[in-house]
Amino acid sequence: MTDLPYLTPLSAEQQRAAGLSEVWPLAHADRVRFSELDPLNHVNNVAYLVWFEIARVAYFKHIDLSRYDDASQEPRIVVRRGELDWLKEMHADEEYVVTSKTIDYRNTSFTMLQEVWSGGTRRAAFQGVIVLLKPDGSGRMPIPDEIRAHFHDVDGVPER
Amino acid sequence: MTDLPYLTPLSAEQQRAAGLSEVWPLAHADRVRFSELDPLNHVNNVAYLVWFEIARVAYFKHIDLSRYDDASQEPRIVVRRGELDWLKEMHADEEYVVTSKTIDYRNTSFTMLQEVWSGGTRRAAFQGVIVLLKPDGSGRMPIPDEIRAHFHDVDGVPER
Amino acid sequence: MTDLPYLTPLSAEQQRAAGLSEVWPLAHADRVRFSELDPLNHVNNVAYLVWFEIARVAYFKHIDLSRYDDASQEPRIVVRRGELDWLKEMHADEEYVVTSKTIDYRNTSFTMLQEVWSGGTRRAAFQGVIVLLKPDGSGRMPIPDEIRAHFHDVDGVPER
Amino acid sequence: MTDLPYLTPLSAEQQRAAGLSEVWPLAHADRVRFSELDPLNHVNNVAYLVWFEIARVAYFKHIDLSRYDDASQEPRIVVRRGELDWLKEMHADEEYVVTSKTIDYRNTSFTMLQEVWSGGTRRAAFQGVIVLLKPDGSGRMPIPDEIRAHFHDVDGVPER
Repeated sequence: MTDLPYLTPLSAEQQRAAGLSEVWPLAHADRVRFSELDPLNHVNNVAYLVWFEIARVAYFKHIDLSRYDDASQEPRIVVRRGELDWLKEMHADEEYVVTSKTIDYRNTSFTMLQEVWSGGTRRAAFQGVIVLLKPDGSGRMPIPDEIRAHFHDVDGVPER
Repeated sequence: MTDLPYLTPLSAEQQRAAGLSEVWPLAHADRVRFSELDPLNHVNNVAYLVWFEIARVAYFKHIDLSRYDDASQEPRIVVRRGELDWLKEMHADEEYVVTSKTIDYRNTSFTMLQEVWSGGTRRAAFQGVIVLLKPDGSGRMPIPDEIRAHFHDVDGVPER
Repeated sequence: MTDLPYLTPLSAEQQRAAGLSEVWPLAHADRVRFSELDPLNHVNNVAYLVWFEIARVAYFKHIDLSRYDDASQEPRIVVRRGELDWLKEMHADEEYVVTSKTIDYRNTSFTMLQEVWSGGTRRAAFQGVIVLLKPDGSGRMPIPDEIRAHFHDVDGVPER
Repeated sequence: MTDLPYLTPLSAEQQRAAGLSEVWPLAHADRVRFSELDPLNHVNNVAYLVWFEIARVAYFKHIDLSRYDDASQEPRIVVRRGELDWLKEMHADEEYVVTSKTIDYRNTSFTMLQEVWSGGTRRAAFQGVIVLLKPDGSGRMPIPDEIRAHFHDVDGVPER
């Protein structure tokens, strides 16, 4: 895994080299930080949430849902629910890949799946419901057509 | 809420004064920190996880499951799964109460429920599965009898 | 120290009870969090910086320099330099007091001193230079007269 | 800067390409994380401290002072003092380089200089005093000869 580019989208080939069992539409590599270790020298439970959040923000920029540069013009993106599985401990300096995609959607919300992989093993998973609000927070906002197209064409959400 | 003692267990009366809809076996008050705010001036999603973690560690000490002072003698306590609901935004300097109890258990694992309350409103909830391992991490450890007694007698888990 | 109110300004009497060697114009009590411990079970160096930052924000609100509620109307407060001393390790659950005052000022900047005390001992100290910018960040802003009066009358900066 | 390898030591050529004004004995590239932004959308002051800490741990491993894998066999490395300069704001997604070297030493302590560079500009600097203690913390430990040799031969500390 040592030749992976960090923090930039990984190609299908790079994902396979990193030991992922399938290719994801978006995946980034990063490495465990000293400040993420707990008194037992394992990665703290909360650190995985930070990684998933960073990857979600990158995903929202990648699909052009938000540039995070002008809050008054962009949808407000709110995580409402999440299910987390912490599957296998991680340690100092481990390299890992975080993957992100949308697996389902409704009018104003969508469901994302994210995973952390390291050494060919799934270490953690997050499945969460994301809600779109109008920029002023006054109510729900429908998912734009081009974002829905991305969900189908790139992320593989089945047509209904 | 301004007269609540911080970071120490709240009495039933103090919990009612803080606007909780029912009395919990363990509850602590704290206040939003500047470093927990995101670029929109809301409390970051991850901060709630930190609060729940702090309250869990306090709970484990409170029920005498772990003192967190000698890792070689104490059970290793691992969170395996969690479901999170972020229900209502929080802002700078808000005071809040975090509540914790066990609602179910099996031989070597138990299910906890935790909530964040502020201004008489539930702001976030966590339901998680906690697993006990032997101190050396070599395998599962049964829940000690006195901990099971606490689950029934204090936390209110029904007898089977 | 167990009867101290948390996160609210401490009276002179409470400061003496907490073991401070002198009374400060502003002091708050808090307690070490689990997430602030490093793999050696000591409080992480960075945690002290977070505590000093929280206390500075409270100080800026206390002296009415900023309410942190409307960035377009308030001075931008920037820390330019800081000297830190980590004096004595801290551990899980320790209660501590953070103190803050201004010790010197010029036209558009001032120097603050902050300390962390626990168990009658100084654990860390921060001396930093804070600069005031106009709300739009376009240039330096002079310290308002009433803030300068606070520096002299409450914090004890000598008249020149 | 987009072709820099992340989180691995940068070559002299890569450092020059990243806009550093001189070549450092150790430098790593990384990128601003969403969770490091404050309510004004700038990188929080504390984040720089986290970056310097991560780079110091990498430096201590690089010079073979500590592997951080067996606390009972390794020197305890304690930061006693630090001077910080926050020189120029940073924003979302910015790539940066953190540099580290030792610039002076005594029997049981040494002085490190670290800088953050981005877009050809110095953004922050840290100068700190690091003290070596015996593994059990019982007293000071002299700097091993091979570490002193590294300070002279690689970091460029002048012979006395």
